[in-house]
Amino acid sequence: MRENPQPLLEASVIIPGTGTTESMPTPEEILDRTREEGLAELTGFLRIPSISSQPEHADDVRAAADHLADLYTHIGLENAEVIDTAGHPVVYADWLHAPNKPTVLVYGHYDVQPVDPLDLWTSPPFDPVQQNGLLLARGSSDDKGQIAIHWQAIRAWLEATGALPVNLKMIAEGEEEIGSPHFEAFVDSHRILLRADACVVSDSGVAAKGVPAIEYGLRGLVYFELRVETANSDLHSGLYGGIAPNPAQALSEIIAHLKDPNGRVLVPAFYDGVRPLTDEERRQFARVPFDEATFMQTYAVEALHGEPGFTPNERTWGRPSLDVNGIWGGYQGPGNKTIIPAWAAAKISCRLVPDQDPEAVSAALRSYIAKVRPAYARATLREMEGHGGPWITEIDHPLLQAGKRALQRVYGTAPVFIRSGGSIGAVDVINRHLEVPCLLAGFVLPDCRAHAPNESLDLESYEIGRRAVVELWRELGSLDLARQKNPH
Amino acid sequence: MRENPQPLLEASVIIPGTGTTESMPTPEEILDRTREEGLAELTGFLRIPSISSQPEHADDVRAAADHLADLYTHIGLENAEVIDTAGHPVVYADWLHAPNKPTVLVYGHYDVQPVDPLDLWTSPPFDPVQQNGLLLARGSSDDKGQIAIHWQAIRAWLEATGALPVNLKMIAEGEEEIGSPHFEAFVDSHRILLRADACVVSDSGVAAKGVPAIEYGLRGLVYFELRVETANSDLHSGLYGGIAPNPAQALSEIIAHLKDPNGRVLVPAFYDGVRPLTDEERRQFARVPFDEATFMQTYAVEALHGEPGFTPNERTWGRPSLDVNGIWGGYQGPGNKTIIPAWAAAKISCRLVPDQDPEAVSAALRSYIAKVRPAYARATLREMEGHGGPWITEIDHPLLQAGKRALQRVYGTAPVFIRSGGSIGAVDVINRHLEVPCLLAGFVLPDCRAHAPNESLDLESYEIGRRAVVELWRELGSLDLARQKNPH
Repeated sequence: MRENPQPLLEASVIIPGTGTTESMPTPEEILDRTREEGLAELTGFLRIPSISSQPEHADDVRAAADHLADLYTHIGLENAEVIDTAGHPVVYADWLHAPNKPTVLVYGHYDVQPVDPLDLWTSPPFDPVQQNGLLLARGSSDDKGQIAIHWQAIRAWLEATGALPVNLKMIAEGEEEIGSPHFEAFVDSHRILLRADACVVSDSGVAAKGVPAIEYGLRGLVYFELRVETANSDLHSGLYGGIAPNPAQALSEIIAHLKDPNGRVLVPAFYDGVRPLTDEERRQFARVPFDEATFMQTYAVEALHGEPGFTPNERTWGRPSLDVNGIWGGYQGPGNKTIIPAWAAAKISCRLVPDQDPEAVSAALRSYIAKVRPAYARATLREMEGHGGPWITEIDHPLLQAGKRALQRVYGTAPVFIRSGGSIGAVDVINRHLEVPCLLAGFVLPDCRAHAPNESLDLESYEIGRRAVVELWRELGSLDLARQKNPH
Repeated sequence: MRENPQPLLEASVIIPGTGTTESMPTPEEILDRTREEGLAELTGFLRIPSISSQPEHADDVRAAADHLADLYTHIGLENAEVIDTAGHPVVYADWLHAPNKPTVLVYGHYDVQPVDPLDLWTSPPFDPVQQNGLLLARGSSDDKGQIAIHWQAIRAWLEATGALPVNLKMIAEGEEEIGSPHFEAFVDSHRILLRADACVVSDSGVAAKGVPAIEYGLRGLVYFELRVETANSDLHSGLYGGIAPNPAQALSEIIAHLKDPNGRVLVPAFYDGVRPLTDEERRQFARVPFDEATFMQTYAVEALHGEPGFTPNERTWGRPSLDVNGIWGGYQGPGNKTIIPAWAAAKISCRLVPDQDPEAVSAALRSYIAKVRPAYARATLREMEGHGGPWITEIDHPLLQAGKRALQRVYGTAPVFIRSGGSIGAVDVINRHLEVPCLLAGFVLPDCRAHAPNESLDLESYEIGRRAVVELWRELGSLDLARQKNPH
């Protein structure tokens, strides 16, 4: 553990959670005062290219962890530490001076996605720029901006009242974008350190600008690399064209076999165990209809594609999917190279929903590929690290209902209960290893271009997010969660 | 033109073509004496990485041209010049002191294929190494080694007799490996310079070790880049998996539509105009049966693949083919990236036989892709520079019969008359623009790994090749080709 830092403010006799006396400002007033300072801090955090998937950025990932630990200390959190794992480290800090109040574990991740294709960025991804009310940078929404929302709400409480209305344990992971390969081992070996009554995760978004959302379900992920080899060497396409098997042809035929023309996955048993959507879920999902026209215009998409019989939200939140994430083989350079490649490969991943079994899906894909591959092609399916199961909790859980009250108060409208198509492996791990209920509420816009060029943070949404977290600590402080552990 | 160099030997009173007096050595004796010197010269030539398709090697291509022009001058050729084109230059040199003898245009190319994947080379591709009777280097067989065979036969004649039995015009192109995009314009604007009675091309191989071959037909080439785009940006595969169209999926489906499971091309009209093989052609082709077992073992190929109803030779020499030469899109790096790519692309080429029309094939492929592409996918088919039509001549042409006599004398066995699956765009150009018959006879082994890692030159085959060209000049010197121009 690091040496306990000097707190910014001395402990106060003000009762935590009330926050209003004539002599003391409210946390909300501190938020107003620290707006510029907070943005400058976030900008500094965003400048660190903490791309977890690229070995050449390992030092940057470490630098981002150190930076965040220092920030936590600076705002008054205690015991800030960068804890090593077998991969990138986890940042921990806490504040545990609210006796008889719940202890809340707050999860975020400080690592970011790669930035390629770099030429599509309008400004350098690690040189944050404000433009039209947006802060443009890799990680601005996913997830550094949301980590910043949390640390600013914490500072607001500590500066205003000298205390927090709840006990907090902050953890920030450095491997979320590569599927949290070492997070399970980390959590498993730090059960006591991480013991809490509830978990809050802000790695998602609002339903629409001004419309908060609580996510009660996430899709899981299994990720593969499929390699198809037909020779030990590239071959001259003139001398051998017509007799040599072609691995790019074979790979294409395998991929073409994975889905029907509508986009329904053809792998037998793929849909086994998929939990049907209830009428209430379909009603909630319909409250935030997916804006097909805007999506198509924003991303220059000709037409949506996917499983028939479901709305877009139902398809991304309640149904599994399969996608090719990358494909490569043979000559990709300028001009012509007249070869038949020796091999071709693809990255293929599946998003899974309750109650699919990731291992069963892997096995089904493996045996299907073995069956549909052309006889001349050697196909190897390698499952990558970082898979995670799907996660779901119940809408009427007290934690989710407390979150609903806090959000409704700040936004002026009730949050919608939705799921997400994304995967947060950490949520699955926390749920299983710590037996603690999770509240997933994020503050960024759906259209923040996470994982893509020109990722952005909408600054109005960021501002209301800071207030929402201040209110959330207030609401959770009044909750008795001790009896609610392990809802599953 | 360069200044006329000092010839290595003074003109002699010996009658060219006889080459044997008690006082003068034979060309064959000179070949024996200059073996090491010739190999050293070839090695120096191979050290220049003249990769024509890669812009960063443009200076190396130029250096190889300069090097070759100097070599030509050094061995006694005249008027050596590096002639600029809109792309890489052509090297020219001549020797025109054999009145009343045919003038023979000799074509070769000094550019080479790229070397990737570099890690599969057992020695650096531009650092030639002798190993087990092979000279390992990029370009050792295709085509620098064969250019060396020619220059050494020329030196042998000039050193032995002070003259050649024929007039020679040597040209070496620098863009063969990228489909000869500027060769047609070069030839068209140098018709007088290149005027000749016959053309000899050594860019092919023997049928098998010790079995010479004369190629009377070549496949043509059309080369495309197919780009499939479904969005203007990569998309998060969690948030959009199930609704966003996937370009790698679409590209794979298009490619899967191009051939049936046996490898027969499904593009309508693709086989239009294909000239049926005669019984005599099938008989000649069968004289050099394709060794399937050796091919499969050498290249670790599970099974041959291609159009049913034809032997391997018939498929590669007499039937058109279609291959994916490269494919790419999305994330190809280490680890996982959870995106749906914005686009994916492939290089696709067709090998064409007489009497297919390259433009008709292009048009057929374009309209077929437009038809089979998924509706959500924008597909763009770009035809690359460097296509060429197929070429064929008649087996009983006097030039081919003269070549047959020379080869039979040196190898002790009659050459087989075959075609090649490869394309030499230059041959098509020479045939059409100079109206001159071509003799295609090469000296390297079929298994020389041209275009692939560990390209090699079999040194025994190289040695007999030098003797065969000496004999070829002798044989062509006795031929009256003036009446045989333009056999087509």
